Amino acid sequence: MRAFVEKQIDNVSLSTKAGKSMYEHHTTIRVRYAETDQMDVVYYGNYAQYFEVGRVEAMRAIGLSYKEIEKMGIHMPVVSMETKYIRPAHYDDLLTVKTTVPELPHEHQIKFVTEVYNESGKLLTQGKVVLYFIDATTGKRAQIPESLKEKLAPFFITQ
Amino acid sequence: MRAFVEKQIDNVSLSTKAGKSMYEHHTTIRVRYAETDQMDVVYYGNYAQYFEVGRVEAMRAIGLSYKEIEKMGIHMPVVSMETKYIRPAHYDDLLTVKTTVPELPHEHQIKFVTEVYNESGKLLTQGKVVLYFIDATTGKRAQIPESLKEKLAPFFITQ
Amino acid sequence: MRAFVEKQIDNVSLSTKAGKSMYEHHTTIRVRYAETDQMDVVYYGNYAQYFEVGRVEAMRAIGLSYKEIEKMGIHMPVVSMETKYIRPAHYDDLLTVKTTVPELPHEHQIKFVTEVYNESGKLLTQGKVVLYFIDATTGKRAQIPESLKEKLAPFFITQ
Amino acid sequence: MRAFVEKQIDNVSLSTKAGKSMYEHHTTIRVRYAETDQMDVVYYGNYAQYFEVGRVEAMRAIGLSYKEIEKMGIHMPVVSMETKYIRPAHYDDLLTVKTTVPELPHEHQIKFVTEVYNESGKLLTQGKVVLYFIDATTGKRAQIPESLKEKLAPFFITQ
Repeated sequence: MRAFVEKQIDNVSLSTKAGKSMYEHHTTIRVRYAETDQMDVVYYGNYAQYFEVGRVEAMRAIGLSYKEIEKMGIHMPVVSMETKYIRPAHYDDLLTVKTTVPELPHEHQIKFVTEVYNESGKLLTQGKVVLYFIDATTGKRAQIPESLKEKLAPFFITQ
Repeated sequence: MRAFVEKQIDNVSLSTKAGKSMYEHHTTIRVRYAETDQMDVVYYGNYAQYFEVGRVEAMRAIGLSYKEIEKMGIHMPVVSMETKYIRPAHYDDLLTVKTTVPELPHEHQIKFVTEVYNESGKLLTQGKVVLYFIDATTGKRAQIPESLKEKLAPFFITQ
Repeated sequence: MRAFVEKQIDNVSLSTKAGKSMYEHHTTIRVRYAETDQMDVVYYGNYAQYFEVGRVEAMRAIGLSYKEIEKMGIHMPVVSMETKYIRPAHYDDLLTVKTTVPELPHEHQIKFVTEVYNESGKLLTQGKVVLYFIDATTGKRAQIPESLKEKLAPFFITQ
Repeated sequence: MRAFVEKQIDNVSLSTKAGKSMYEHHTTIRVRYAETDQMDVVYYGNYAQYFEVGRVEAMRAIGLSYKEIEKMGIHMPVVSMETKYIRPAHYDDLLTVKTTVPELPHEHQIKFVTEVYNESGKLLTQGKVVLYFIDATTGKRAQIPESLKEKLAPFFITQ
């Protein structure tokens, strides 16, 4: 159990920068051969999967997995994504995916900022993804689940 | 309408080889950049998608799309696939996918044999895929839908 | 040959809106089963492939394929992408991908705006993608190939 | 360092069954949302990626990564794959990928048998993949690199 707790401490951080708090999480992904293209780099479209893994692990780390949210009858479709490609990732690179929830989500949407770094600590890619909370039955916008809001709130203690 | 009829004649053939009949269909696929890997060829795992496109278009051509079969409450999961990789496909190649139903399906399964050719007519890849008919509600094996069997039957007139 | 010429006329248009010209191209893509996810829609990350197909066919239509540009020793990595997801695409949908080059590219970059429509003409997704021209040997920024600029220029006759 | 050594002991095993030895390795993969399809299971074509991850980690564990082999000027294209789909994998499942080299490779080919298990220990999928060693410059068959053969040999001590 101890190893797990330490890992959590490593991966999740309560950052307070000039009075602004946020939730930040790190995970790693090994680049698959399938994810490269003939330019010898990760295909630009595959970063959306890396951002997804980052979001999913960030949510799992606070104790409410995306799978559990779906079981509550909530879908989370992506409504916008902005990606900047700064440096290429290569086959077999062990990437660090840093996922940030920059502000406490409210109402029907949540924003994630994801940065992908290589083993030398160089920033490769940055993504901003906005998702809506949708009632899976009606297809209409839903409020952020209270349980998710409660898990996130401690990371956003304003001074 | 005439163009459509001619296209059908090109694409669908009732072959009788030594008293054995089968259903055969051709479609084309342009290789996407995303589908290549850093060996400068189509990633081996992506042929399963090409085989899928071949099956789907072969079924549409006889007048019963896979989408319609799903609407009838039938799923068709793949239960086995055998693939031989003979020559590589490259970026931007216009591949011909030849899909064959070698025998009239009966009971709960259907077999497709798919061959992928390049523009020079060279055989690149061969796949044999077996799918089951499954009741989407119960998850149990179902019989091949009668409407599908009827569409396929004319191609299997034994002498 | 005639059919081909007509297709070109359909697909490529020289639009002049309030004195502003641009290059616009249409192509179609059938949604593959592989491209859906368990939300019963096309996975958000797969639109990057659709945008790629749109760009590639738009370039082929003016007579200079992306493959030919690579043979000239030029790579075209994507440096930024913005995507808006307005409505979902579903399995087997025949999508229309409308690709626009909104301004005559100059120096080392080119911008494409891509819109994806369903069969009812509803706008599903919009993407803005910027690519750099890179010397494949040195990895440094290159000027847009003259031959590409010449092919595009006629679509940008300002009044 | 200790943790690493223990991990190696867990993951790599020298099995001797009725006088026959082989190399066996375990790794885990979390199913991504992107990898599911609208049948709510992992798309059948995506297992090729899981098999690839299994092979790559199995080779890394004996001390010679696939990336290093490519740097030696050797490519390893897949020449055949047989897959049996027994049970479906679902979103967010933590899969165990068991990769076996059933016989000491010789000449120009190597065979991997891969089994994918879910968290309940149920066998989901089985794959047999044969790869060739190819000289990346000439494109012709090459012998298995001596260094790889030496790393594998200790697992195949016949009695």
